[in-house]
Amino acid sequence: MNIGDQSARYVEFMNENYRPGFTYQDFGPQFTAEFFHPHQWAKLFEDAGARYVVLTSKHHEGFTLWPSQYSFSWNAMDVGPQRDLVGDLAKAIKENTSLHFGLYHSLFEWFNPLYLSDQANDFLTNDFVVSKTLPELYEILYEPEIIWSDGDGEASDWYWNSTVFIACLFNESPVKDTVVVNDRWGSNDINCNHGSFYTCSDRYNPGVVQPHKWENCMTLDKSSWGYDRTATLSDYLTIEELLTTLIQTISCGGNLLVNTGPTHDGRIDPIMEERLRQMGQWLSLNGEAIYASNPYTCSETHVYATFLSWPKSEKVELGSVTEDVVEGEIVAQLLGYNSTLTTTLSSSGLEVTLPSLSQVDARWAWVIKLEGVKISNGTSIVKKDKHINL
Amino acid sequence: MNIGDQSARYVEFMNENYRPGFTYQDFGPQFTAEFFHPHQWAKLFEDAGARYVVLTSKHHEGFTLWPSQYSFSWNAMDVGPQRDLVGDLAKAIKENTSLHFGLYHSLFEWFNPLYLSDQANDFLTNDFVVSKTLPELYEILYEPEIIWSDGDGEASDWYWNSTVFIACLFNESPVKDTVVVNDRWGSNDINCNHGSFYTCSDRYNPGVVQPHKWENCMTLDKSSWGYDRTATLSDYLTIEELLTTLIQTISCGGNLLVNTGPTHDGRIDPIMEERLRQMGQWLSLNGEAIYASNPYTCSETHVYATFLSWPKSEKVELGSVTEDVVEGEIVAQLLGYNSTLTTTLSSSGLEVTLPSLSQVDARWAWVIKLEGVKISNGTSIVKKDKHINL
Amino acid sequence: MNIGDQSARYVEFMNENYRPGFTYQDFGPQFTAEFFHPHQWAKLFEDAGARYVVLTSKHHEGFTLWPSQYSFSWNAMDVGPQRDLVGDLAKAIKENTSLHFGLYHSLFEWFNPLYLSDQANDFLTNDFVVSKTLPELYEILYEPEIIWSDGDGEASDWYWNSTVFIACLFNESPVKDTVVVNDRWGSNDINCNHGSFYTCSDRYNPGVVQPHKWENCMTLDKSSWGYDRTATLSDYLTIEELLTTLIQTISCGGNLLVNTGPTHDGRIDPIMEERLRQMGQWLSLNGEAIYASNPYTCSETHVYATFLSWPKSEKVELGSVTEDVVEGEIVAQLLGYNSTLTTTLSSSGLEVTLPSLSQVDARWAWVIKLEGVKISNGTSIVKKDKHINL
Amino acid sequence: MNIGDQSARYVEFMNENYRPGFTYQDFGPQFTAEFFHPHQWAKLFEDAGARYVVLTSKHHEGFTLWPSQYSFSWNAMDVGPQRDLVGDLAKAIKENTSLHFGLYHSLFEWFNPLYLSDQANDFLTNDFVVSKTLPELYEILYEPEIIWSDGDGEASDWYWNSTVFIACLFNESPVKDTVVVNDRWGSNDINCNHGSFYTCSDRYNPGVVQPHKWENCMTLDKSSWGYDRTATLSDYLTIEELLTTLIQTISCGGNLLVNTGPTHDGRIDPIMEERLRQMGQWLSLNGEAIYASNPYTCSETHVYATFLSWPKSEKVELGSVTEDVVEGEIVAQLLGYNSTLTTTLSSSGLEVTLPSLSQVDARWAWVIKLEGVKISNGTSIVKKDKHINL
Repeated sequence: MNIGDQSARYVEFMNENYRPGFTYQDFGPQFTAEFFHPHQWAKLFEDAGARYVVLTSKHHEGFTLWPSQYSFSWNAMDVGPQRDLVGDLAKAIKENTSLHFGLYHSLFEWFNPLYLSDQANDFLTNDFVVSKTLPELYEILYEPEIIWSDGDGEASDWYWNSTVFIACLFNESPVKDTVVVNDRWGSNDINCNHGSFYTCSDRYNPGVVQPHKWENCMTLDKSSWGYDRTATLSDYLTIEELLTTLIQTISCGGNLLVNTGPTHDGRIDPIMEERLRQMGQWLSLNGEAIYASNPYTCSETHVYATFLSWPKSEKVELGSVTEDVVEGEIVAQLLGYNSTLTTTLSSSGLEVTLPSLSQVDARWAWVIKLEGVKISNGTSIVKKDKHINL
Repeated sequence: MNIGDQSARYVEFMNENYRPGFTYQDFGPQFTAEFFHPHQWAKLFEDAGARYVVLTSKHHEGFTLWPSQYSFSWNAMDVGPQRDLVGDLAKAIKENTSLHFGLYHSLFEWFNPLYLSDQANDFLTNDFVVSKTLPELYEILYEPEIIWSDGDGEASDWYWNSTVFIACLFNESPVKDTVVVNDRWGSNDINCNHGSFYTCSDRYNPGVVQPHKWENCMTLDKSSWGYDRTATLSDYLTIEELLTTLIQTISCGGNLLVNTGPTHDGRIDPIMEERLRQMGQWLSLNGEAIYASNPYTCSETHVYATFLSWPKSEKVELGSVTEDVVEGEIVAQLLGYNSTLTTTLSSSGLEVTLPSLSQVDARWAWVIKLEGVKISNGTSIVKKDKHINL
Repeated sequence: MNIGDQSARYVEFMNENYRPGFTYQDFGPQFTAEFFHPHQWAKLFEDAGARYVVLTSKHHEGFTLWPSQYSFSWNAMDVGPQRDLVGDLAKAIKENTSLHFGLYHSLFEWFNPLYLSDQANDFLTNDFVVSKTLPELYEILYEPEIIWSDGDGEASDWYWNSTVFIACLFNESPVKDTVVVNDRWGSNDINCNHGSFYTCSDRYNPGVVQPHKWENCMTLDKSSWGYDRTATLSDYLTIEELLTTLIQTISCGGNLLVNTGPTHDGRIDPIMEERLRQMGQWLSLNGEAIYASNPYTCSETHVYATFLSWPKSEKVELGSVTEDVVEGEIVAQLLGYNSTLTTTLSSSGLEVTLPSLSQVDARWAWVIKLEGVKISNGTSIVKKDKHINL
Repeated sequence: MNIGDQSARYVEFMNENYRPGFTYQDFGPQFTAEFFHPHQWAKLFEDAGARYVVLTSKHHEGFTLWPSQYSFSWNAMDVGPQRDLVGDLAKAIKENTSLHFGLYHSLFEWFNPLYLSDQANDFLTNDFVVSKTLPELYEILYEPEIIWSDGDGEASDWYWNSTVFIACLFNESPVKDTVVVNDRWGSNDINCNHGSFYTCSDRYNPGVVQPHKWENCMTLDKSSWGYDRTATLSDYLTIEELLTTLIQTISCGGNLLVNTGPTHDGRIDPIMEERLRQMGQWLSLNGEAIYASNPYTCSETHVYATFLSWPKSEKVELGSVTEDVVEGEIVAQLLGYNSTLTTTLSSSGLEVTLPSLSQVDARWAWVIKLEGVKISNGTSIVKKDKHINL
């Protein structure tokens, strides 16, 4: 939802529930975060099987979750929580987990008058960037391993001074040796073309293996990045939908960034906690298929085939495993099941006979791990087989 | 939680988050219920497989959800929602569903000074009952099919005038032909001894078949009847735990009343919606085992055996089904699976061979329906077999 | 202002400044009284020259300023101040001043559904009186020397049970020997006919001497009994207007009850404090003309003539002081001036020569005290002379 | 009061009345100004006899009353009133009165982190000035005839870039031909030395005629520039005290700037309205003594002698009016009284015989206007005579 969105639904809601003239900023003191327990969050993210966390340090409305010098009276120390939410989560993550910590940051701000003024000048002025965006980016440099930039879409990298910032980031900053950045740094063909990893568009899920590291950033609430009090169960992904997205993404070489919008009082709603824990439970059995195929740490000796519904025939056909790609004895295992599976190689591919479902620990989705199959291009050829993944 | 509970946890929370002197009643205007959609609730309860709904019309703090004449300025019309929440839900339930509608009502009030005064007089005075409890009970008589009384525990039925009220209810009230009542009408051995059905203590679950209709009222949030913002996933029952409780309760002849505490803005949190819908999904496949065995509409021709984890052996032993209780050809079926199951009767009982789990639609818990087995006492003898239910 | 008043002005104000559905009771928690310092109030009332104080213990909206048993959750202990405002002021008045302490109490309540129900029954039922009005009146009996009843206007004393209450008050209550009551106890000709003193209508100011003790209850804010945030200077009485009213009232044998509406945070606005202190300053010089002529303690040896603008002629003609009423040597003094004034008795009355205004301490209004003039009927005949008082 | 003031009084008040962690900025939405009627204000200032008005456009806490581009989310359009308070008052003043309109502006901000950072750098950096102070000053240039600068005290004009701004103001701005500025533009001896008029310190009242135009800025609430809810009557100047200050200031060639702190809901409290109207009433009779002696429009033919208590002798001695300064027939008049006064010139000065006080319209302070007396230095010599003014 865009704050400027004047859809009847939002206008009507405000009319019915707030005094006339209530502004977005008037909500500030109601953001109290009294139940924000960063150590609980860190533990939850770890339990969910995550390998990195990206906190929205500032979204398009401009409210900074850290006490920015450049957002006086519009940050979480001055208004509401009276707390450095960024610093507190960073500390909890670093002290208690092995997760990597990143920060999302919106370059533009919906209604910042300086931005609007630059916009009105066709971005030939950049007062906003000089007095707000860049100083803030330097402020949040003290800790993140990922800078997840957003909101670049209306102006080129020239306006945003992106090159200068990134050069500084990688050459001179305290995090120069560890930091990675995404690709949203300018409207001029940077997105999906430059960056440590590509995010392209929101919910990017290309369906085929990509030559470059990429990420699918998506949301547990299907239609909202923020917590929506009116969301009911059907607005959230089921665990099956979440795992489907995870496996599709991973099988095409991408990472998955799962968004959970916290509440005004600092909580992650139990329905989202459940999805994260279900994902973690699944990953605790099947994680090697996910993490090993991570572009960063690709497994070179195994192929993983995943299926999302258990076939009534209790057999799986892997059409892309033909004689051409076999290079030794094929050993097939079901993750979460101890014995080796029976396989039959034929001209139509490899048929794997599954055990009885009652013997298997995994739920929701299952992974067959194959040895003796050739791997090309650093990713599993098998993962390209659509039949396997669905 | 008792409002008077001065546990450090609660005192500290108030100290940290509210102005000194903030009273319970000061919360009133913050109970806004702007997202209360009674038709959505009615549909959800129906989807959950419920057959009746009981709304808390007034809890121990005394705030009435209907515009009571006897609770001026401390009811949902005068403070907060400005709405007759009882009437609105009753209407939605009646217009859109075939559910029975009931009302919970607390006889006593934690801090009502009239009650405290009667209490100080050893309940020899009953100013509170005369000016508050009874008039309110007569007010809510206009519609419910169930009066679910509570809060009787400190005084006898003589103090509460219960006999008079119940006589009126069953002889003269508009609902006299349809209404049922529970058993909390006085501290003098009424509870668990008198009433259309017994509720005995909260979370009553006797473990053996009871001779009288009874109900297990329990909560999705394991430790709270109200919505608790600090509850995390582990504070809620899993669907397996919920179904276990349901089956245990039903198999002993009881009804299950599942409590969900709504939020201040009138919603049922998605995690609770999920549990209700999961229960509904399970009941849509297995409901006949539940509804048919309902004390009100007992099935006299079938026996249902339920198990909560699928045996790796893929066989179930029903020890209590011995030759003595067999009276014809035994026909065994798994609810949600079309074919008849193979059975073997021996001295140790009946062995039922299950199909492959991959062929079965049900999740979480499974029900075998038996024909050709004698039934005694109006309930299934098999249900008393502990091996079957766990 | 009546809460039920649906004048466009009020409706529009609420529409423009509050969320839809905001109720009168929702204001409760905003009544905080954090700056209520009863000792300051007591001192101020004493400095103002008052001899008694009457606190509104409950007005027509039904909110009780003491923790009434019969107004649970709608009183100053349960909502807002969390304090017994009645008790705290009573204590401060009694401990620190010699003022008499009284309590205003509204018999009826605008929107109490029990009252409305009795009203709909043509006051043939009196549920409201039995369960609310009378119990509350007995509650506040513990301390006042004045019971200032109000809100009787729609029903007779029979409905209100006034006779019973008053009999109890004067025969059995702890204050039976000292208490006085006003006259608003029923619509059937009680007002202005019965009572320790008469209040008749609000701002009652008959203009002629009355045979019975009476009181003029009026307001510093000309049009509101409550504090009105929108009141500007012209909405308040000037000190000249206040003294005019005081002198007119006293000269006709009445007492003056000056209303000041406190703010939500427990203060008396400085403009009202100023008027009270100006009145006190005037009374410190001229008080004997006021207190001595009090119906309760009438002066029998002096006559007081008051004038509200200083004549440019520096002479005052007292037309009603003719030879008939002179019974000795006439001695005339100006209060706040030490020497005796020169007088000339003629057929047209008594001419008093004033000193130079620069020699006189009093401001706003001046009093001439006469000896040697006959007094009839227990009050000054001179006070009936309109020429003198204006 | 300084926001950073940690006096026990303020800390305790916050502890007792607000939730822990409530920040200054959290107050923002409570500043609603719903009763701000700029046309009423404009009329009141005119009625008070003012010739110019200075609005605090931004005080030390940094909240701008206009929608500043450089104070996003911390201005009266984004938070609270949702209104351009500066623009609305400017318009009302200009459309309805002949008053000059000025704007107060604080150069520094108590807690702005950019300012604090510059401060920590010994003001060798000026990030705050470049990104906040100067852009804001240029923003408010569109209308004022007076720029009343404040908050310069910790750094020199070099830090503030004052010279550049003032040069621009007088050379290039739309108000270059009409604007005047005060003297608070840098800590390096600018105050009381440079500027269209001098303000020196708050409540500056030198007691002797000054060679340069100057102003005494003072407050109706003796101890607060903002509205203080806890202020009682004794905290406000009496009209006598206000007129004393006015006359002292004017007689030394200064202007008086009378501060009134408005309430959170946009009102001028009635006690302050009263003082302003009393001043206006006095000026309507005696204004020529004030306005004519204004440094900007000095009267060259008359001398005004003012006295603040009416002598019981009914004579005034003007010791400084000796034969040396008489240059013709002396004509003495009392403002507000029609006839000429009798005078006697002797070696000890000029004795003026007053009329009877009862003949005089003025209150609180009186002015004798003299003709035939020499004037030196552009101001009245008589005004230097302390005996006359007290």
